[in-house]
Amino acid sequence: MAPKTDIEIARTAEKRPIQEIGAKLGIPPEALLPYGHDKAKVTADFIAGLEDRPEGRLILVTAINPTPAGEGKTTTTVGLGDGLARLGHKTAICIREASLGPCFGMKGGAAGGGYAQIVPMEDMNLHFTGDFHAITAAHNLLAAMIDNHIYWGNALGIDQRRVTWRRVMDMNDRALRDIVCSLGGPSNGYPRETGFDITVASEVMAILCLATDLADLQRRLGEIIIGYTRDRTPVHARELKADGAMTVLLRDAIQPNLVQTLEHTPAFVHGGPFANIAHGCNSVIATRTALRLADYVVTEAGFGADLGAEKFMNIKCRKAGLAPAAVVVVATVKALKMNGGVAKDDLKAENVAAVRTGCANLGRHIENVRSFGVPTVVAINHFAGDTEAEIAAVQDYVRGQGTEAILCRHWAEGGAGIEPLARKVVALAETDHHSFAPLYPDEMGLFHKIETIARRIYRADHVVADQKIRDQLTAWEEAGYGHLPVCMAKTQYSFSTDPELIGAPEGFDVPVREVRLAAGAGFVVAICGRIMTMPGLPPEPAAHSIGLNAEGQIEGLF
Amino acid sequence: MAPKTDIEIARTAEKRPIQEIGAKLGIPPEALLPYGHDKAKVTADFIAGLEDRPEGRLILVTAINPTPAGEGKTTTTVGLGDGLARLGHKTAICIREASLGPCFGMKGGAAGGGYAQIVPMEDMNLHFTGDFHAITAAHNLLAAMIDNHIYWGNALGIDQRRVTWRRVMDMNDRALRDIVCSLGGPSNGYPRETGFDITVASEVMAILCLATDLADLQRRLGEIIIGYTRDRTPVHARELKADGAMTVLLRDAIQPNLVQTLEHTPAFVHGGPFANIAHGCNSVIATRTALRLADYVVTEAGFGADLGAEKFMNIKCRKAGLAPAAVVVVATVKALKMNGGVAKDDLKAENVAAVRTGCANLGRHIENVRSFGVPTVVAINHFAGDTEAEIAAVQDYVRGQGTEAILCRHWAEGGAGIEPLARKVVALAETDHHSFAPLYPDEMGLFHKIETIARRIYRADHVVADQKIRDQLTAWEEAGYGHLPVCMAKTQYSFSTDPELIGAPEGFDVPVREVRLAAGAGFVVAICGRIMTMPGLPPEPAAHSIGLNAEGQIEGLF
Repeated sequence: MAPKTDIEIARTAEKRPIQEIGAKLGIPPEALLPYGHDKAKVTADFIAGLEDRPEGRLILVTAINPTPAGEGKTTTTVGLGDGLARLGHKTAICIREASLGPCFGMKGGAAGGGYAQIVPMEDMNLHFTGDFHAITAAHNLLAAMIDNHIYWGNALGIDQRRVTWRRVMDMNDRALRDIVCSLGGPSNGYPRETGFDITVASEVMAILCLATDLADLQRRLGEIIIGYTRDRTPVHARELKADGAMTVLLRDAIQPNLVQTLEHTPAFVHGGPFANIAHGCNSVIATRTALRLADYVVTEAGFGADLGAEKFMNIKCRKAGLAPAAVVVVATVKALKMNGGVAKDDLKAENVAAVRTGCANLGRHIENVRSFGVPTVVAINHFAGDTEAEIAAVQDYVRGQGTEAILCRHWAEGGAGIEPLARKVVALAETDHHSFAPLYPDEMGLFHKIETIARRIYRADHVVADQKIRDQLTAWEEAGYGHLPVCMAKTQYSFSTDPELIGAPEGFDVPVREVRLAAGAGFVVAICGRIMTMPGLPPEPAAHSIGLNAEGQIEGLF
Repeated sequence: MAPKTDIEIARTAEKRPIQEIGAKLGIPPEALLPYGHDKAKVTADFIAGLEDRPEGRLILVTAINPTPAGEGKTTTTVGLGDGLARLGHKTAICIREASLGPCFGMKGGAAGGGYAQIVPMEDMNLHFTGDFHAITAAHNLLAAMIDNHIYWGNALGIDQRRVTWRRVMDMNDRALRDIVCSLGGPSNGYPRETGFDITVASEVMAILCLATDLADLQRRLGEIIIGYTRDRTPVHARELKADGAMTVLLRDAIQPNLVQTLEHTPAFVHGGPFANIAHGCNSVIATRTALRLADYVVTEAGFGADLGAEKFMNIKCRKAGLAPAAVVVVATVKALKMNGGVAKDDLKAENVAAVRTGCANLGRHIENVRSFGVPTVVAINHFAGDTEAEIAAVQDYVRGQGTEAILCRHWAEGGAGIEPLARKVVALAETDHHSFAPLYPDEMGLFHKIETIARRIYRADHVVADQKIRDQLTAWEEAGYGHLPVCMAKTQYSFSTDPELIGAPEGFDVPVREVRLAAGAGFVVAICGRIMTMPGLPPEPAAHSIGLNAEGQIEGLF
């Protein structure tokens, strides 16, 4: 019999009422706003009452550089949460919400896999509790108010050639990347070039994920720079009086969503900023709430540790005052083989030498993560075809790095298959010998921050940038934005900016092509290479085979 | 002390748990999918089990031609529902959902007013249960799949100049009315002219509101014509394999939403198609479900009776096999005065003569509604400044038309203030002397249907249309669409197509400027005059003053 697909496993899950899941964390039923019987939002009022509680231990799950072979970061996050719960620890999981658009293209959802999944999987990959729709609406209300302001006399003197605020849609729609709007005559406004990004790329998404409460959310929304006047003075959302209405649109969305794993471990699934032009972590509010309700909170960050963990530490932890108690770096034998130079079609054959070569990628990530002063362990996410010799090669290598690589079978076995990792994580987290610190201080210059990340994390020789870019960074420092952290946007496939440079490359430069100021989110984006903020659909999109079967169940979503 | 505003009344409402409201109609808790504690969707499974139940009596609330003075159709619908419930009848209300975009412009929500309101009013004017967001997503997925199909080789041979399917957004954004998309080079597709409509104008919205179940929904979505090939052959959504994924996106949205009035009467609030290019009624599924659960169901239709009631009868009732048991025509003294020629600034002064003149508008609506074979009564929606003489003038006039005009004080007094009307409605509905029939048979030619509505409802002399339009109608008849009803799109302010022609005008022609085929919704749209399918924001949009107050309550939404 073929193994069950993720959707089949999710469909047959016996879900407990969400009030029962909330009770595990001491959340009373009246503090849960139900969405159906298996999803709920935790009310802002309840969260406000938790402020004085002590916080549990935060565990970050990150990974080697992703390959088409997959490394299973979310699956390991979910499995580790279940494993910790099995050991008797009060545990919560914190992950991001899935973007709807890509589910109709080719990427599946982001709810884990096998027997380490969060349910209801279908809802999470579709509208869920409507958070992304609310973000889309808030973003596009601001966009409409910009063109409306220009239309009715433009009192603020916005230069319509310098409007930087685009529109968003939660859809893979390449036709909207570049458009000319306001055509059709005087009653439709002044034609100008603009375009759409996918909703997860919205600064509103990043703001929602970094805001500490509704007041902070509104303040950040007001800080958004929507464009410039002719003399290049920035124009803010608050000058358009858009921040109040945007906050109202996000009033429900800012409350974290509670769901459950297949093993009924509570999971907060909230927010989902892009991991390139934004910081790629779930919301600060969800993480803080979870830490105040649980002894262990397992979370993840987007892409490999060079992007995800770095931003988690330098943006999210710095800004929210968080500190991870331990970090798990996920690797798979297959992905290490690919990092060791094996082609995708040859992955099935045992190749211990390639595994050893690929371990260089893993080794550098371990070193990087440790440089933040946090204890680190490796999880080998087990796949059926892995050989004992290959697994031993990884374990030997990691032992040589002074830590441990633990084989995890959560995909096939659920929480029971990952108990050894869970025990190790508890041991590491409880030593209290760690001293977390971000990589650079707030006061460091913006260009120097970029250089620090490129040299110390990526191991680049130099950062290359036009004088224009350096001048822009200096101008922002003079305007009072110099204290912000830097959000790096580069390929997730390599430490470098060249996706082909796998393993642990050296002797390369990092070119910064563009810098952007996300004044509301509170970071400066350094774009290194081509970053796509609106994906397209493939020739045979998943949408072709998504539909309801005769029993009314959803097929084709995975 | 100033009278309370709608939002103040709504905010202090003591809402009962939604399960308690469902119980009034015999809906068990497990058949309700809660959204918070005061909103729920009724499950499709439960609805499927109701099929053999007898149906209650359907009461339509319609109105004279709207004026800036307001006629209070939704308020009367809500009040009448409360009034019937007070008389001991098992009652449900069915109204449309509010569109989010206009709430940030100048129009308030659509949840009634004063003490005849449906709550939670704020939620209903914002995201509610996400139905409109789901419709937006389904509509735009189809749009993305069209451009994606063309991009990857265009196997269906779609003529990119003849793509009629636009995109939608639930926002007042004039800048999106006319755009050129797919700019920026080969990787973004083939540039072409297109644009956005507001979500309520989407054919997907009309389809959701006319579909009888999920299977019928998918069939209708598949029937959508997205454009034409070079030789003018229509291309359908099902040829793009979009119907399955669109249905999945609408799986939750098709389930009707249950909320309550201030007096705890159950209210289904579901769907909200435009009342011009679509039929302007709440969903067939909600209406049918309500009829199977209640003895009396009070519903309304968009705009005045010339548009709303006509489409309710000729499109919704015809297609769904419904028949109203009685019709209430709402009028206000102020709006009758305006129809009698009084300027807005002079409305406060008593003017019995103008009321009498304006009654001609009311009289024609009464005559029209009766021509469908349904008993009719007039509700005078009371305003504080109305004088006894003015009210008496309306009542005298209506008596002369062979029916009754009943003064209703539901805005100030809730259900108690409208009991006399409720009693009259019951008396009319229980006579069973009525014999509902639509205005024209299915077999009548499409142009002849337009003429029938224009002559018999509007009292126009002629319908004027270019040969090109007549040829198009003939072509659709030959293609098998001749049996469809006609959906008239014209101004709501006059029986004619000239908004200035108030009262009961005669001696005018109706020009048909354009015809459109909504093959999925199942009607042919005849556009008479300029119809705006994407509104703009005013110079001082409501968004400027919408925000949260110090207590976290929403201000500025009304």
